[in-house]
Amino acid sequence: MNEKDLLFQQVINAKNASKQMINLTNETKNKILVAIADKIEKNIEDILFRNGIDIEAGKNASLSRHFIDRLSLTEERIKDMVEGLRNITKLVDPIGEILDTNITENGLKIEKKRAPIGVIGIIYEARPNVTIDTIALCIKSGNAIILKGGSEAMNSNHILSKLAIEAAEENGLPIGAIQFIESANRELFAEILNLDKFIDAIIPRGSQEMIEKISEISKIPIIKHGKGLCHIYIDESADIKMAVDIVINAKTQRPGVCNSLETLLVNRNIAEKFFTEFLKYLTENKVNLELRACNESFDILTKMNKAISPDMKNILMATSEDWDTEYLDMILAIKIVGNLEEAINHITIHGSGHSDSIITENIENAEKFLKLVDSAAVYHNASTRFTDGGCFGLGAEIGISTQKLHARGPMGIKELTSYKFVIHGNGQVRK
Amino acid sequence: MNEKDLLFQQVINAKNASKQMINLTNETKNKILVAIADKIEKNIEDILFRNGIDIEAGKNASLSRHFIDRLSLTEERIKDMVEGLRNITKLVDPIGEILDTNITENGLKIEKKRAPIGVIGIIYEARPNVTIDTIALCIKSGNAIILKGGSEAMNSNHILSKLAIEAAEENGLPIGAIQFIESANRELFAEILNLDKFIDAIIPRGSQEMIEKISEISKIPIIKHGKGLCHIYIDESADIKMAVDIVINAKTQRPGVCNSLETLLVNRNIAEKFFTEFLKYLTENKVNLELRACNESFDILTKMNKAISPDMKNILMATSEDWDTEYLDMILAIKIVGNLEEAINHITIHGSGHSDSIITENIENAEKFLKLVDSAAVYHNASTRFTDGGCFGLGAEIGISTQKLHARGPMGIKELTSYKFVIHGNGQVRK
Repeated sequence: MNEKDLLFQQVINAKNASKQMINLTNETKNKILVAIADKIEKNIEDILFRNGIDIEAGKNASLSRHFIDRLSLTEERIKDMVEGLRNITKLVDPIGEILDTNITENGLKIEKKRAPIGVIGIIYEARPNVTIDTIALCIKSGNAIILKGGSEAMNSNHILSKLAIEAAEENGLPIGAIQFIESANRELFAEILNLDKFIDAIIPRGSQEMIEKISEISKIPIIKHGKGLCHIYIDESADIKMAVDIVINAKTQRPGVCNSLETLLVNRNIAEKFFTEFLKYLTENKVNLELRACNESFDILTKMNKAISPDMKNILMATSEDWDTEYLDMILAIKIVGNLEEAINHITIHGSGHSDSIITENIENAEKFLKLVDSAAVYHNASTRFTDGGCFGLGAEIGISTQKLHARGPMGIKELTSYKFVIHGNGQVRK
Repeated sequence: MNEKDLLFQQVINAKNASKQMINLTNETKNKILVAIADKIEKNIEDILFRNGIDIEAGKNASLSRHFIDRLSLTEERIKDMVEGLRNITKLVDPIGEILDTNITENGLKIEKKRAPIGVIGIIYEARPNVTIDTIALCIKSGNAIILKGGSEAMNSNHILSKLAIEAAEENGLPIGAIQFIESANRELFAEILNLDKFIDAIIPRGSQEMIEKISEISKIPIIKHGKGLCHIYIDESADIKMAVDIVINAKTQRPGVCNSLETLLVNRNIAEKFFTEFLKYLTENKVNLELRACNESFDILTKMNKAISPDMKNILMATSEDWDTEYLDMILAIKIVGNLEEAINHITIHGSGHSDSIITENIENAEKFLKLVDSAAVYHNASTRFTDGGCFGLGAEIGISTQKLHARGPMGIKELTSYKFVIHGNGQVRK
């Protein structure tokens, strides 16, 4: 079979397997998940060895430090995957859940019942744990899976999916329900994005460019997992200590992830007070953060900085590009705004609809911000870092949707389902 | 302004208006809907006059009888629109509904809150009532609307949208929230399907070809309202009288709509008995139905027909094309199958995932059919004609989704919404 036939056959096999997955009981699904967990646990050394090959190649190819970090597995990270699998067994099986019941006047019983989506294709970069998380969530939600990882993680993804497929099919998963695509041929892969009869949804996780490209060429519906250009707005009446704590947490606790802070908006009337405490914190705690400040804040910050910490040199003047950049790094854009409306307007224009927070003691301003900022998660007096399936109580997540159709924000097993209307009658006809 | 600039400006205006719609109270939205209803009621004559121009042009262009029917307005149909508007005022405002609340261990209150989608574009053919139904549903669900009707209904859609916009904007709808596209320039229109920053969802309603074309070129997420190739399967243990009644209802009560029957599957063991009663009914009631029968059923039907009704000549041999054709006419494809599995398999291959029904007294077979047939609505002992927002208790519908992401089956105001996570904290940071 040539490369194209092989690839298309994988897609057809996934579709066929998906039709049998509706028959899987929760017991069987959990048995499969435990078997995968056990198998991965027994093969940690081999997984680390294969991952080492990818890391080595990545370093030779001068991939960025953050990228290598996302690519890297450790014994602890593998144990997290294993724990994730076991946690998902504890979740209630979503399939078959009755979402709504309606008995009509003529006696029809109409039930809206949760059902699998069918075949889900995921396209992802770096993180090999996505391979296992996706397999686990799709099995529990009754979906077949097509995995297309990045070439930089090929060895890691290959061993992980191989172990998972073996353990799953031995324990009752329909043959072909997990398909791992080995081909790195992009043009060929683009062709499968036309197969909307066989694949029901595509989840692209990765760079904005990759997601844009896929949404342009795909006929299959997409659930975008796009960038997180998150904002915090420090309102005039913010509690300064709280503001500093939250900004530091949102920016520095894990700068490489999508829910971390990128742009800080500060109300003019509190700017000096806030910056004083903020710079003090950075100096005292030796936080190595680069600031890209608007003209006005640049003046204030550099002036203050001389007084507080004459050695700190990492305050730069922001360019217009900074407001649209997801750094995923120890860099923070800072802009002074005149009022709440200006802050909301900035977020509307430059935000990515991911997570945005207001720090204020003014309830009215908080409610206005929460209502008018059109993002998946809007916060009052909390760090944006909480936008996460685990923190939101979903048990696990396949990612964070940045679109508004189907699912928004963290996506767990329920978000990997559709529904159907099941109608019981006794001869009803329409008048 | 040239045509392109004008069109793009319309899209930008819709986006800007959509941001203000979140502020509309239910009271204002209802006031707007009533004002539109009143205005339309007062202008029935003018509407009928403009519709007459479209009908005349359609007849001159030799559009089909069914198409002209869908295009035609009558006083009664206009009054139905008006009633529809008034009915929607009675529905609970979906915006702001709390779908889920979760208080985390560290005291964060996470609310999942229903929110508008933003800007919805609808592309539709013929039926001018879609103009008003869409406007009404989108206003109630807080969305801005871009309307692109077919050129065959231009005069009708133009007057209806003009009246609606006037009445709505006079009563508090943000200026620009309803945009009616006059240009018939298809290439230009294709360009706006790239404006995913401004339009949040596209609903194409119409021919399969049109929907395929749009899903190929659009960067904006789509909610497909595709064809309805509906099946009824007469199981071995069906109640024959019930089976005949349901088949006649599903096929002939309104053959031009998407939830009408197209292909009848009959179990071999009940075929003779069923066909006897079915042909008797057709003859006695002078039902002018054309049958396109598989080889086996053709033999039975023609033999029987000679005995029952020697004059009836409309039994033809089906070709393979018939299994994939949505007739929307007084034509029925008929196929004999050996068992339930064969019926399900036929539906899986040829169905459109819209509505399919099994007629049986065997509960086990019914449950298997309802579970394994992957359609938006699956019926046991009832006509497929019930797949409809009104029948399903949604109050009103913008159409019937034939896809699995976001919404499936009849779509009402809730299906025109998204959600956001609103999080209240008191200084929480992530550990």
